[in-house]
Amino acid sequence: MQPDPSTPIRVAVVGHGNLGRGVERALVGSPDMELVGIFTRRAPDDVTPAVAGNRVLHVDELDGLKDAIDVAILCGGSKSDLRLQGPALAAQFTTVDSFDTHADIPAYFAELDAPARAAGTTALLSTGWDPGLFSINRLLGEAILPDGETYTFWGRGLSQGHSDAVRRVEGVAAGVQYTHPSADAMAQVRAGERPQLGTQDKHTRECFVVLADGADPDVVRKAIVTMPNYFEPFETTVHFITAEELARDHAAMPHGGFVLRSGSTGDGNKQVIELGLTLESNPEFTASVLVAYARAAYRLNQQGVHGAVTPLDVAPGLLSPKSPAQLRAELL
Amino acid sequence: MQPDPSTPIRVAVVGHGNLGRGVERALVGSPDMELVGIFTRRAPDDVTPAVAGNRVLHVDELDGLKDAIDVAILCGGSKSDLRLQGPALAAQFTTVDSFDTHADIPAYFAELDAPARAAGTTALLSTGWDPGLFSINRLLGEAILPDGETYTFWGRGLSQGHSDAVRRVEGVAAGVQYTHPSADAMAQVRAGERPQLGTQDKHTRECFVVLADGADPDVVRKAIVTMPNYFEPFETTVHFITAEELARDHAAMPHGGFVLRSGSTGDGNKQVIELGLTLESNPEFTASVLVAYARAAYRLNQQGVHGAVTPLDVAPGLLSPKSPAQLRAELL
Repeated sequence: MQPDPSTPIRVAVVGHGNLGRGVERALVGSPDMELVGIFTRRAPDDVTPAVAGNRVLHVDELDGLKDAIDVAILCGGSKSDLRLQGPALAAQFTTVDSFDTHADIPAYFAELDAPARAAGTTALLSTGWDPGLFSINRLLGEAILPDGETYTFWGRGLSQGHSDAVRRVEGVAAGVQYTHPSADAMAQVRAGERPQLGTQDKHTRECFVVLADGADPDVVRKAIVTMPNYFEPFETTVHFITAEELARDHAAMPHGGFVLRSGSTGDGNKQVIELGLTLESNPEFTASVLVAYARAAYRLNQQGVHGAVTPLDVAPGLLSPKSPAQLRAELL
Repeated sequence: MQPDPSTPIRVAVVGHGNLGRGVERALVGSPDMELVGIFTRRAPDDVTPAVAGNRVLHVDELDGLKDAIDVAILCGGSKSDLRLQGPALAAQFTTVDSFDTHADIPAYFAELDAPARAAGTTALLSTGWDPGLFSINRLLGEAILPDGETYTFWGRGLSQGHSDAVRRVEGVAAGVQYTHPSADAMAQVRAGERPQLGTQDKHTRECFVVLADGADPDVVRKAIVTMPNYFEPFETTVHFITAEELARDHAAMPHGGFVLRSGSTGDGNKQVIELGLTLESNPEFTASVLVAYARAAYRLNQQGVHGAVTPLDVAPGLLSPKSPAQLRAELL
């Protein structure tokens, strides 16, 4: 089910934050795809594309483009944008998104499924890396090693939610928070032990904080490390730095993590499967995953698979621009 | 497309070496599957099943069992068994195998495809870990990070082919060979560099040898490390041990390895995806992969997907006994 290489997949990018800009750049490396335009809620003239020459249009202009777009890549946030945009756009276009509020995935799936089925489109939700690549590896791990335990570790990575929490503390002028996987806990799991580990046992937290004028560092540190849920059960380190250091050393958005399955077969032979991601740019990596899954969403739609689907429903071969025969010869 | 849990998938195991015995044990952990029997070319009375109570039958008895078997798990070797058995059995049964002669996969695919299509069966070839899980990760890596390089490292693992080569050296009474990934090469790749590495740069070799009576260790060592192709381009270490030590310390069949994709996005942000396997029993792990893919082969056949398919054609969800809704809620 290969697209004719002479007719590229026509892609719309909806939303233009870090993720949308990452998609623009990822599309440059995907010659089988063609950007129709970036669609924004802002005034298009105020939006500078990440790739010179890309068209920026108002999101309202999507309405007339049903026949000009093969797949819409939704780059809005999970908290508010996607729950509204996703179902509305799935009624017109095949879509792909990186919806990542784990607890709401079943509800969002249902919200997309009905309009997509009615319209004959395909709505591929929750791509990215967690959910996404990590979910696939959690599934492979337990399907292959049913006698076992799965462990997900995050980091080293910048956490937006925890950085926001730090910045809300009185006396904090600016700051960021990194989540680290606990080296001790990872070593236990890699050795084939099956420890019982809560989230706080698997991770440590590290904050880089710029103090407000006159703020007492001891008071600020205590307010951070004792903050319930966000920091209180975790081992937390707080560093105080200058605004210049924050701008110079902490502007990037690294992230990553590990999914480990520790299992046994036969008479107790230990078997460990580990997936690890080390990402210098979290939004650019997520954008790259979105682009590969956009290709798959288009192909699933061409195959007649309509309605909501997730990465768990996507055969790996659909992600590649190569033909099945080429993949078998080169990669199998 | 869930099987009715009240009607387990009926499985035949064809061949009863290390792999077949591993499949027997893996089926114990798969309550949605039921073993019809182990089918062997030997006299069934001479074969002791790995799981007490399992039936052993002669392979000729498969002929009458077309309607009693949902999927046949082929546990023969790639060199001779599968090229003959696979196409013959695919003409009667949905099959799954771990054919691992990489260069012959396209030819074997074609040999399975025609009889399977004609019979309306599904022939799922080259599951296992390489080809198999490693192939999936090579594909994901290049589809997500088109600007990048893929590196496959094997080990630490017992290599049958290299152990055989050691044992053919004059003066060697017995011995085994382990392949190790090069720590230096892996560190370079993990750091996001993209070195040009041949197989010999990525691996070292370690031999444990029992000398024949009167053999000169220096002569034997030299004969091993200078053996063309097998050892000559590699850094090779040879240890001389007693027959007792060989039996005590080197009877297991560990293996594993790593697939790394080192890529860049945007303005040169480094992104690294790494899959690692650490296996105390290579045949038991491969058997566990075969069992999960047997479930998928059966489901693909139920969905009307006939002919030859590979792990690159299998959506992850098909490998799990859980329902799609349960997978979305628990794992995504």
